[in-house]
Amino acid sequence: MLTPLMTVLARTGLDALVLVPGANFRRVFGKDFHQMERPLAVIVPRQGESVAIVPHLEMGSFTPIGFPGRVFPWRDEQGYMGAFMAAGEALPQLRKAARIGVEGQRMRVFDLFALQQALPGAEFIDIHCEISRVRLHKTPDEIELQRKAIRISEAALEATLAEVRVGMTETEVEGILLRNLFSHGADGLSFAPIVAAGDNAAKPHAHARPDYHLKPGDPLLIDFGGTYQGYSADITRTFFVKEVSDYDRAFYETVLAANTRGREISRPGITASDVDDAVLTVLEQSQFAQFCRHKTGHGLGLDVHEAPQIMRGNRDVLEPGMVFTIEPGLYREGEAGVRIEDDVVVTEDGIECLTSFPRELRIVG
Amino acid sequence: MLTPLMTVLARTGLDALVLVPGANFRRVFGKDFHQMERPLAVIVPRQGESVAIVPHLEMGSFTPIGFPGRVFPWRDEQGYMGAFMAAGEALPQLRKAARIGVEGQRMRVFDLFALQQALPGAEFIDIHCEISRVRLHKTPDEIELQRKAIRISEAALEATLAEVRVGMTETEVEGILLRNLFSHGADGLSFAPIVAAGDNAAKPHAHARPDYHLKPGDPLLIDFGGTYQGYSADITRTFFVKEVSDYDRAFYETVLAANTRGREISRPGITASDVDDAVLTVLEQSQFAQFCRHKTGHGLGLDVHEAPQIMRGNRDVLEPGMVFTIEPGLYREGEAGVRIEDDVVVTEDGIECLTSFPRELRIVG
Repeated sequence: MLTPLMTVLARTGLDALVLVPGANFRRVFGKDFHQMERPLAVIVPRQGESVAIVPHLEMGSFTPIGFPGRVFPWRDEQGYMGAFMAAGEALPQLRKAARIGVEGQRMRVFDLFALQQALPGAEFIDIHCEISRVRLHKTPDEIELQRKAIRISEAALEATLAEVRVGMTETEVEGILLRNLFSHGADGLSFAPIVAAGDNAAKPHAHARPDYHLKPGDPLLIDFGGTYQGYSADITRTFFVKEVSDYDRAFYETVLAANTRGREISRPGITASDVDDAVLTVLEQSQFAQFCRHKTGHGLGLDVHEAPQIMRGNRDVLEPGMVFTIEPGLYREGEAGVRIEDDVVVTEDGIECLTSFPRELRIVG
Repeated sequence: MLTPLMTVLARTGLDALVLVPGANFRRVFGKDFHQMERPLAVIVPRQGESVAIVPHLEMGSFTPIGFPGRVFPWRDEQGYMGAFMAAGEALPQLRKAARIGVEGQRMRVFDLFALQQALPGAEFIDIHCEISRVRLHKTPDEIELQRKAIRISEAALEATLAEVRVGMTETEVEGILLRNLFSHGADGLSFAPIVAAGDNAAKPHAHARPDYHLKPGDPLLIDFGGTYQGYSADITRTFFVKEVSDYDRAFYETVLAANTRGREISRPGITASDVDDAVLTVLEQSQFAQFCRHKTGHGLGLDVHEAPQIMRGNRDVLEPGMVFTIEPGLYREGEAGVRIEDDVVVTEDGIECLTSFPRELRIVG
């Protein structure tokens, strides 16, 4: 169970690492926990027994994991510091000059402060990306769950488009989408969906507006995904309401060409940087170069944004089993935006595109 | 806009505080942001101009906030450290011996490490609870949104019960509940719902099982809530499938008596500890004392778990506008669990119970 973590320790040369609930925790232990006001942490030293600090309330769920180490439960009425201190005493090898890796993008400051008190003299280092490599290569089972999440999400999008009408508000469309996601079998949301029309589509992370009504000629950008057993879909399509101008059509086709280029070039052996560069070059060499705003994509799995980042400068080499998004976009601030996002998995000799929702420009409403 | 934060600074005597996206951020700035791999932070010093470090990608959403201070945007290709360092230079008054408050349960370790590099010599202190006091008293508008979230959630629960049948799996019931939440108008989930039958109901934070089928005599515990414009419902009811034993009925009635006691005793002027004590005393003086596992409740609003914690030892005095849960439970490990949870708001002379779903023992399926 701890083998992938021991690999991280060997690779980084650190003395220990700490996992908190989240995607890495779930991948390693097969189960996840809420990350709320009650800290839960697992400390895995290079040498000696591992320890876990667990809210007593969660023991019924934690015990079945079969954690190979000592467990220090704590109760609300005692507070958590006693359990952290006892855990620290059980790890004398880490109490001075130890170097301990943590998940910097996931662990919260109050977890860190408790660990610092329990292990005075230890130095804590953010190795979020190194630890997250335990999730970099997806198993066939994981890919199947992701495929299921995507299939559900695509069916929900198709059902939603059938209900979209000119004059609806963005939040009405969002409501229809949410209802369709869950009626098609999603068990959660990958993230709060983006349903953005007109000028709002120019904001890469827009929120749906209750007072904006879809009007003819508007782009309608929908970036969303349902989860299935913890695995996420992340899909964007941009439609046009009732009609589309020649200018917007050219704008759309440019993004589509960049998306197509990304799907064509991706294969094992090239770097994440190569993919981003090829995709961005399509945008940058177009008449719309000035409207380019972000990188091509990110890894996808138990987290919605994970490695590999598909970004210039990232020399990570693509390998079979990696899953990532290809999502070029162009944004004319105050006017319109288009993004087209697919999810792909790297295979032995190329990629398989997990998303299959049509990409041709589509008029809705 | 920054007035509530200046009040926190005055109360704590600190030199500055930092906000990251989340419920406090949303309450202060009227808008929230994703908390993902791109750090966004606002530093508010006691003296001098505030600064914000913002991913360039979010500037289209950040600008309309009208942030009163200097903004340091950063782009993916540059990384975020340059913006943090520039922000640090714009705050010379904080570069040595300053004491800076942070949201320990929300800020992540990589945000803290960036701040520590940008403001060397400053000491960072977890004042999560102090900062969160900006959300302690709800305005009538906030209560109205919470009421809406609760109304949606209760309607969804009623619709779900009409579909529950003996033999269904826990995940099937969960799917029906999710679909009903969104078809009734929820715009998100307060948290991943708990749908737990039989022995699973004895785990306070259980996950629905795809392979457990509801059988006669099972308790069916449903702890869930939809959100509406960011505000959360958090409701638990426990039903019995087809039939209930006399023992389980007595077990249920004990929890209901504790819940009733909590709703009866709550009023302005008493402490959170008083409420928990009165509720737990009902459980502890019953024949089921040994099955008591957790405190009475927690505050509810933009966060699902916030102040005031309804817990022995918490001397916070209840005041009008505070919203919290009353959710006593009893758990026979490996056998059964019952929890009954209501959401209440403190009024001038008592409480108003925002939840109205019937509490009488109900047979379903």
